[in-house]
Amino acid sequence: MVDLADVRAAAKRIDGRVRRTPVLAAGPDRWFKLEFTQHAGSFKTRGMMNQILAGEVSAAGLIAASGGNAGLAAAYAARELGHQVEVFVPVTAPAVKVAKLGKLGARVVQEGGEYAEAYAAAVVRAAETGARFCHAYDDPAMVAGNGTIGLELQEQVDFDTVLVAVGGGGLVAGLIAAVSRNARIVAVEPVGARALYAALEAGEPVDVGVGGVAADSLGARRIGDIAFGLARTAKIDSVLVDDAAIVEARRRLWDEHRLVVEHGTAAAQAALISGAYRPEPGERVVVLLCGANTDPADLAT
Amino acid sequence: MVDLADVRAAAKRIDGRVRRTPVLAAGPDRWFKLEFTQHAGSFKTRGMMNQILAGEVSAAGLIAASGGNAGLAAAYAARELGHQVEVFVPVTAPAVKVAKLGKLGARVVQEGGEYAEAYAAAVVRAAETGARFCHAYDDPAMVAGNGTIGLELQEQVDFDTVLVAVGGGGLVAGLIAAVSRNARIVAVEPVGARALYAALEAGEPVDVGVGGVAADSLGARRIGDIAFGLARTAKIDSVLVDDAAIVEARRRLWDEHRLVVEHGTAAAQAALISGAYRPEPGERVVVLLCGANTDPADLAT
Ligand SMILES: Cc1ncc(COP(=O)(O)O)c(C=O)c1O
Ligand SMILES: Cc1ncc(COP(=O)(O)O)c(C=O)c1O
Repeated sequence: MVDLADVRAAAKRIDGRVRRTPVLAAGPDRWFKLEFTQHAGSFKTRGMMNQILAGEVSAAGLIAASGGNAGLAAAYAARELGHQVEVFVPVTAPAVKVAKLGKLGARVVQEGGEYAEAYAAAVVRAAETGARFCHAYDDPAMVAGNGTIGLELQEQVDFDTVLVAVGGGGLVAGLIAAVSRNARIVAVEPVGARALYAALEAGEPVDVGVGGVAADSLGARRIGDIAFGLARTAKIDSVLVDDAAIVEARRRLWDEHRLVVEHGTAAAQAALISGAYRPEPGERVVVLLCGANTDPADLAT
Repeated sequence: MVDLADVRAAAKRIDGRVRRTPVLAAGPDRWFKLEFTQHAGSFKTRGMMNQILAGEVSAAGLIAASGGNAGLAAAYAARELGHQVEVFVPVTAPAVKVAKLGKLGARVVQEGGEYAEAYAAAVVRAAETGARFCHAYDDPAMVAGNGTIGLELQEQVDFDTVLVAVGGGGLVAGLIAAVSRNARIVAVEPVGARALYAALEAGEPVDVGVGGVAADSLGARRIGDIAFGLARTAKIDSVLVDDAAIVEARRRLWDEHRLVVEHGTAAAQAALISGAYRPEPGERVVVLLCGANTDPADLAT
């Protein structure tokens, strides 16, 4: 599947093209990895950069489907690498997100009423034009690129456990490949968007309903095959948090630490404050804060 | 005055009571020191903690005068150290700031139409009650506490130059004491609040008018005596930035790095983007990002 050697190769490949992000000591035995300070505002830039660099790109360029962080990462990485990119988003995508993609130089195509339709249209279009389709999570090179966070983290801090939010599973899969031999991985999902949790329960990926405050980044209908395979084998922890805990975690990250993150990211911290995950005394815990493509307006006091 | 030994003593005194704040690599030869993640949202907590711990506190407690970061730092430090504190603010202080001080357990006294009057009232009150008055910048222990940022920074990154915003000068004074033997210090002020710049020009502290977007944190009418003495002796650089550069720097810190800071803090970065300070090729520059007590609402995209 994807293993440590792949992650190491990814780290070499994307070196100098992604930011090394700092770690903040958040209290006794607690750290935040500030991955939201990554280019384009999320960890997805690591995976996207690696995915693009790992294969050939013809003059037809690249195609992605996402109204969120994967689209921004694809647009950013394509621009930096000098490729054309089309990003398919549903017609319901907020105008500001579309504008942001355009500002990064992507051609934005609005198609379908929800993500799944934009995705289908993007795949069809890629087949027609010969452009390369870049998956938002279920691609080995995407996973390996995301996993470079884990290697970096091991150089920065001595930890037992890392908490990570899960959407389609590309991030948690990368972390499993990178650090699950040495660390415990806690996968956190909203109650209303539990693709991994439901898959582990069912013994296979299953479709789930998606909703709630973090649905824009964590609302995958089905966990990726790569993530499911790695998560089942590695026997990671899978926990759920409700929207109230997510909203409170996001607010407290601002009030107590002056960090602005999106709801999907706050889910990881919500597992600690809600008790969905309870570390042992002395357990050294890192919370991955991995995206900040959010409107900070509601944090005003 | 205040020297390296004082800063080292301060570092020992406040160890464990203030946060070690991370450094972010912002590009080739550029770093941000994320001091705005300090307790109570600014570096002032270092100075205030040291100032309080350096002397006796009677049952009458502490008094501070500030509607901004010094008040918040005093309220936070007093609470942590178990002292009573009264914070004097002008009647014009925004309700949210007053509420925040109250939430930290301070008794808030609204007196006078501007800061100078609140300050005068606080000094009178301290004389009456026997409470100890804690200065927002022009106190040796405050300066030494602020200077601990410099020692920490030297452990974290190898740098030539540090850019720092100046209000009353307590922060720049601390940095001079801590690191001016080994590093260049660039003091940055808004065009409309140039207390240090004007003093260096005049050869002595002089009153200046204050206004502009950063006046709430950098709008001291006169530079502190400690800061003036140290700045003149150390021959530091003093530069000015206009409000447009400050606003742009603050916006770009959000757009490009997902960091939310207040205008006073963005002034330091504004010196780079405006060209008010131009580093040599290869010069390793740290921008001190020292406060985030700001309303992030206007950063919405
Ligand atoms: C901020 C943030 N966190 C976490 C995730 C989840 O990542 P994945 O889809 O790889 O599980 C996403 C996905 O978009 C995200 O944007
Ligand atoms: C965020 C911030 N930066 C810089 C300063 C300037 O510090 P000083 O008054 O010690 O010069 C202040 C003062 O309040 C501040 O709040």
